[in-house]
Amino acid sequence: MGGHAMKQQNKKKPALPSRQPTATQAPFVPGFTAAGVHAGIKKGKALDLALLVPDPPARVAGIFTRNRIQSPAVQISRERVRSGTCSAVLINSGNANACTGPQGRRDAEAACAWAADRLAVDPGKVLVASTGVIGVRLPTDRIRKALPGLAGRLRPEGLQEASEAIQTTDRFPKTAWAWARVGKKRVTLFGMAKGAGMISPNLATMLAFFLTDLEAPVPALRSLLKEGAARSFNRINVDGDSSTNDTVLLLASGRAGNAAALPGSPEYRAFASLLFPMMEELAYKIVKDGEGATKVVEIRVQGARTRAEARRLAYRLANSSLVKTSFYGCDPNWGRLMAATGSAGVAVDPARIDISYDRVPLVRKGICSSDRELARTVEVLKQDFFTVTIDLHVGEGVCSVLTSDLTHDYVTLNASYRS
Amino acid sequence: MGGHAMKQQNKKKPALPSRQPTATQAPFVPGFTAAGVHAGIKKGKALDLALLVPDPPARVAGIFTRNRIQSPAVQISRERVRSGTCSAVLINSGNANACTGPQGRRDAEAACAWAADRLAVDPGKVLVASTGVIGVRLPTDRIRKALPGLAGRLRPEGLQEASEAIQTTDRFPKTAWAWARVGKKRVTLFGMAKGAGMISPNLATMLAFFLTDLEAPVPALRSLLKEGAARSFNRINVDGDSSTNDTVLLLASGRAGNAAALPGSPEYRAFASLLFPMMEELAYKIVKDGEGATKVVEIRVQGARTRAEARRLAYRLANSSLVKTSFYGCDPNWGRLMAATGSAGVAVDPARIDISYDRVPLVRKGICSSDRELARTVEVLKQDFFTVTIDLHVGEGVCSVLTSDLTHDYVTLNASYRS
Repeated sequence: MGGHAMKQQNKKKPALPSRQPTATQAPFVPGFTAAGVHAGIKKGKALDLALLVPDPPARVAGIFTRNRIQSPAVQISRERVRSGTCSAVLINSGNANACTGPQGRRDAEAACAWAADRLAVDPGKVLVASTGVIGVRLPTDRIRKALPGLAGRLRPEGLQEASEAIQTTDRFPKTAWAWARVGKKRVTLFGMAKGAGMISPNLATMLAFFLTDLEAPVPALRSLLKEGAARSFNRINVDGDSSTNDTVLLLASGRAGNAAALPGSPEYRAFASLLFPMMEELAYKIVKDGEGATKVVEIRVQGARTRAEARRLAYRLANSSLVKTSFYGCDPNWGRLMAATGSAGVAVDPARIDISYDRVPLVRKGICSSDRELARTVEVLKQDFFTVTIDLHVGEGVCSVLTSDLTHDYVTLNASYRS
Repeated sequence: MGGHAMKQQNKKKPALPSRQPTATQAPFVPGFTAAGVHAGIKKGKALDLALLVPDPPARVAGIFTRNRIQSPAVQISRERVRSGTCSAVLINSGNANACTGPQGRRDAEAACAWAADRLAVDPGKVLVASTGVIGVRLPTDRIRKALPGLAGRLRPEGLQEASEAIQTTDRFPKTAWAWARVGKKRVTLFGMAKGAGMISPNLATMLAFFLTDLEAPVPALRSLLKEGAARSFNRINVDGDSSTNDTVLLLASGRAGNAAALPGSPEYRAFASLLFPMMEELAYKIVKDGEGATKVVEIRVQGARTRAEARRLAYRLANSSLVKTSFYGCDPNWGRLMAATGSAGVAVDPARIDISYDRVPLVRKGICSSDRELARTVEVLKQDFFTVTIDLHVGEGVCSVLTSDLTHDYVTLNASYRS
């Protein structure tokens, strides 16, 4: 179960399923080069433009935001990913190129075309992703000018640099590198993500890219990505807003030379056990780095009438400002959980509800167990990770989501984002 | 239209439909006495127990929270209001008596019975309302001890004192007093409300009581209350959480001696034009006094496919932490409005969306009009009241709600409510 794996990851160093490279080694994946530069999209000197280049073109699968208002970057990548082949991914931070009208589409296409020209690849196979402020035209002249330098820096060890260039308000980079035995071959996987704000169901303001040398057909990659997202990126929440730009890509160069990881094969399962924990790890890190967040809370709803109702309630609680401020203040205010539960539009019987904070059974049959449990709950709340379990006892539906607390820093960050 | 009336109220002193008593006069309504005392439910010395007593019993209508988890106070009042007659209303602040199990029901019934005994009225006609912390047993011994003193203070001029006793984290009292000519008689109306946190659709953590000397049958009172709430208390939002305790009552003593205000009659309409603006005024004040709020924003959605979709989107925007912090920071971050609009689950065409801040047309056909309009929008955002209009241009659905901004003080208040 994903929730359990996520929880473990905070309690101790995440246990990836196989040997992990040493920290001093620069990550790389056979078949890929990467680079990042400062193109001048962001103020200051931070990196803001990245290229990921598989050579030869890699197999690719992608998932994208379900927001009905989408950046042209999402539209273009969604169209192009259908071919199953990718010759480059161009990513910029500092500008989402969203709500920019027909000009935004032309700008994104032009950026892809310049990159394709520079790399001598098919422009129809260049994917693009953008993150940053909405509604401001992409500074395409700066991107065009930066592209020769960016292409010139492409190298296998450029992944870390690229992962820095995709950050916005992130406080720490979110990368992971691991390998596993798939059949008789060693397969490498590198993941990078950015998050911070607008984190909610159906992806976040979140970009994530997974590069591997696995040999696998495109349908297998699609299935792996979908299944992995269901237990990671689609179960997280920071502030309830879904972005216009969310993109997750899985690129596979096939260089490992393993027997093809066909859906359901042992190779597929071996790779899944490499990929899924990494997706969960990066999703966890996105919540942990949620804007202003001081802690991560797993909200687990069980005993709901259906899984859909469990999910609805879990997100209702994860989105409640009153619930999230109580986490911040280490306030065992289970009454707010009850009030939000009653207004979530799911079947409840107040007299059956149990609520636990980690293993402290604070609420039994709808009422508070004792003052002693209240005091113990405060201790749970002081941790930087804990699980709140709401058992409705009316059915079998289960769902858990990860959320962050709502803090002064969240307000500070978001009251002044543009200024 | 309610939204317009609400807006007017902030731009200038609300224009009530008839002469208003002078500020120096203590409000009263023929046929009612009231009082408030400190019973010791709250810490400190603040008033926390109120009685409203019609003599003889008044006609009554009530509306209550739709939260599925309800205080026994709500359950009892909902049952008893069906008779259409009320002999007393007992209200406490400092304790919501919610999530207190079967004991909570017994406690609320006991409090009503003691009040009935002291007032020598039918206990089955005593209504009760509670507000405050959830999940803590009502201190019934303190209520019992306070009741003789409370009953002894009952007087026509006690309404102001009673309105103080129903406050929780409110920063200012919310009362209104006005009269109007109904047929050939002068009818008086007094309203009191408390709000502050957990303000959302389908009532807030909100108690409101309207007392009048109007002569009207119970069905007319019910219809007036329902229609008035639809344009006031059911259109406000502070933080998206619905309370377990919301209660709005309308009590009519009939002392004015007007021709009975039958539904649809001129008397009914005359009283509606007294009642509805007062309900809107108190609803506006509840948002203005939202926890930590520095401003009130009317979110008006028009051109939605249906009214239901307009309402869904309006609440989606009113509940968005990113949108609310942008109001706080005077940040013309229309991109957050767009992102939230796209993920609200309503029909949208990004290329048709217009967004105005008051009369500044910031977004036309989904893109930003100009930097000049951005600068003008900042000026709008600096006001303590303004209207954001989102026109989807896909239908005729319209809905507007009032919301507050999300501020540092909101976080401070709610991270430490119990401590």
